[in-house]
Amino acid sequence: MSALLKDRATGEAAHDSTVEALMHRIGEEARAAAAILATASTAAKNEALRAAAAALRCGETDILAANRDDVAAMQTAGTSAALIDRGTLDPARLDGVAQSLEAIADLEDPVGAVIAEWDQPSGLHVERVRTPLGVIGIIFESRPNVTADAGALCLKAGNAVILRGGSDAHRTSTAIHACLVAGLKAAGLPEHAIQLVPTTDRAAVGAMLAGLNGAIDVIVPRGGKGLIERVQREARVPVFAHLEGVCHVYVHAPANLEMAKAIAVNAKMRRTSICGAAETLLVDKALAETHLRPILEALMAAGCTIRGDEATRAALPSAEPASEDDWYTEYLDATIAVRVVDGLDAAIRHVATYGSHHTEAIVTEDKAAAERFMAELDSAILLHNASTQFADGGEFGMGAEIGIATGKLHARGPVGVEQLTSFKYRVRGTGQTRP
Amino acid sequence: MSALLKDRATGEAAHDSTVEALMHRIGEEARAAAAILATASTAAKNEALRAAAAALRCGETDILAANRDDVAAMQTAGTSAALIDRGTLDPARLDGVAQSLEAIADLEDPVGAVIAEWDQPSGLHVERVRTPLGVIGIIFESRPNVTADAGALCLKAGNAVILRGGSDAHRTSTAIHACLVAGLKAAGLPEHAIQLVPTTDRAAVGAMLAGLNGAIDVIVPRGGKGLIERVQREARVPVFAHLEGVCHVYVHAPANLEMAKAIAVNAKMRRTSICGAAETLLVDKALAETHLRPILEALMAAGCTIRGDEATRAALPSAEPASEDDWYTEYLDATIAVRVVDGLDAAIRHVATYGSHHTEAIVTEDKAAAERFMAELDSAILLHNASTQFADGGEFGMGAEIGIATGKLHARGPVGVEQLTSFKYRVRGTGQTRP
Repeated sequence: MSALLKDRATGEAAHDSTVEALMHRIGEEARAAAAILATASTAAKNEALRAAAAALRCGETDILAANRDDVAAMQTAGTSAALIDRGTLDPARLDGVAQSLEAIADLEDPVGAVIAEWDQPSGLHVERVRTPLGVIGIIFESRPNVTADAGALCLKAGNAVILRGGSDAHRTSTAIHACLVAGLKAAGLPEHAIQLVPTTDRAAVGAMLAGLNGAIDVIVPRGGKGLIERVQREARVPVFAHLEGVCHVYVHAPANLEMAKAIAVNAKMRRTSICGAAETLLVDKALAETHLRPILEALMAAGCTIRGDEATRAALPSAEPASEDDWYTEYLDATIAVRVVDGLDAAIRHVATYGSHHTEAIVTEDKAAAERFMAELDSAILLHNASTQFADGGEFGMGAEIGIATGKLHARGPVGVEQLTSFKYRVRGTGQTRP
Repeated sequence: MSALLKDRATGEAAHDSTVEALMHRIGEEARAAAAILATASTAAKNEALRAAAAALRCGETDILAANRDDVAAMQTAGTSAALIDRGTLDPARLDGVAQSLEAIADLEDPVGAVIAEWDQPSGLHVERVRTPLGVIGIIFESRPNVTADAGALCLKAGNAVILRGGSDAHRTSTAIHACLVAGLKAAGLPEHAIQLVPTTDRAAVGAMLAGLNGAIDVIVPRGGKGLIERVQREARVPVFAHLEGVCHVYVHAPANLEMAKAIAVNAKMRRTSICGAAETLLVDKALAETHLRPILEALMAAGCTIRGDEATRAALPSAEPASEDDWYTEYLDATIAVRVVDGLDAAIRHVATYGSHHTEAIVTEDKAAAERFMAELDSAILLHNASTQFADGGEFGMGAEIGIATGKLHARGPVGVEQLTSFKYRVRGTGQTRP
């Protein structure tokens, strides 16, 4: 272990370095590790992941002790119960973290896969081959499991990763990171392949957003809207993220009432805190008499508060009035905004105006209407007759995901291992020169 | 034609607007046009392209007159002969521009193509579908044909485009742009789908690089290194570009001498001014006695100047000495840097150190060495036994291209219509809710 690393293990910036110099060094070490990882074998990467899972299980006592210190500090600081819950590990949750490393080891290795190939009239055989992206910067808030999940996904895709976690979980993240490094060493891979920024100084985030002199290829932020806004505003490198998930369920005539109820309740209430949770329900005017009230009653029975426009409140006078702001709001809570719209065009207009290009569902038996909804809206995910809560890498068959992106470049929707790769062209000839 | 457009046609900023306000309005108009274009039919887009080609042919007299004025102004300004040649149109070149619009009409429409689809255990059917990117900003220098080519490629992929050409070709670009707008109108598509910035004020470039308040999704610069450097430094939106093409040909033992000579000469000399032209020749030490001098003589016979390291000058004392700088240099001229390297590892190290991640070729009969060269180097295009001058969208079977990208995100290698698209997920269910 180098002198620098020993300093890092104390959680303080190296004594001979400013944060900037430290971050510069981390960037260089990541770049060097990435060059080695790019051609690392699948077997070595999987061995590192499985060894890291084993180290997490062996290190349970230390990790949970570190976590108790983090939790105690959060309690002293008056952190909200919800955030403390997110940041708390127990043996079952920690085993879940280890299992997720093993699940990532089981995923197919995207690197080297030929994703397209063809022959040209010149006789050249052209292949498009997946390659790692290089160095990925992850900036996250309290959940310490992101250390393991994000580190493992980046590694599987052959990338080096620089992890910068929130100060609330720093002790836990450091303990988990030590297990990942143990896994890398066991597999003979460079230990700088997965680095955790050892300082909680916010200047480290600024340095990452500036790209560490070209060392970082892409930033993935994981956290609340404040973090994402800062990252999107300041980053000088590409960002895979979504600012928010103002997801819609639109019920269009004719719609099966039971299906509409089930999808609305599931989309809103299954888990209210995830980005794929529905925030606004749009109901076709043609269904206002028949479907609106039963759907609202089902939502209320599940514990949901309704904020409605005038037509909604005509059907359900007890609903709170919705303001213009409600159409833009990501509640992440048991509240839904409800609006009666005059048909498909009005629904599409509403989503295009107020939505966040994340995930929208249409519930209808009218296939042509569903096709138009999915063609004309440009959200990352559009569903027909299914809940918005399916917006998830696992549910899409991608295995683990590092988040959901709403940008239009490179990665969109769930960001899994494939989305953490780039590609290059491999061209085979027999001496061709260009005429 | 709106009042604003009339002002634009004069080549001046609208009288009631600063450049910033003008650019803001252009951005808003592009965004509105993009929303319509996103669902425009293939037939309408192709009709617009063919009508624009017809308008170019009908407008030949006016366009060539505008071009004569541009050329005269360049001559007065003392512009170099090479740049004047690039900027000069004649009837044959103009017909080539029209033909390229027709060729783009003949390409397959990428929008709406299902690029992957699968079923999930939940019963959901997931499709990944190509969508337009949105609004593309093209910043180019003197070649007026870029107005037509870039405008047409963006249109074919369903994107609105904002073109900002160099002042040297502004009259010609304006005349060509009028034909594109005529094509859009003939097809009933929004005329703001292809806008040409009417001012040559450099502040317009700055506004585009800042993204026009989120109106621009991606910038594609076309021009010299100075332009690309400015764009890469200042852009707050993604950029598809390559800074330079320091492309390599590496001759590894055993190599067929005739093939090595032909590829080296073609890679360097076929056209020296294109980004895929070879700039450095690496020759395996094992071939120094047998292959080096014959390859250099073939290059010299084709008119190429040699700058060599010591081992090269030992074989060819008349060669100029190469300095460290030469290994980094994109000559874009009939000069090549030549180095003798000690085997494959040294060749890979040289390319990784001095290259620009554009295009590299290995000439060898050793298949394993070729595979390692193509696996370990992370350039956009790697070729075995073929000339680097094949680095071209047309030669890759993509039809026209808007340029070559060396970035790792989204587009890499030739940027054709497919690379000017994004994607979304379309998911079909039968009432699924997430457990």
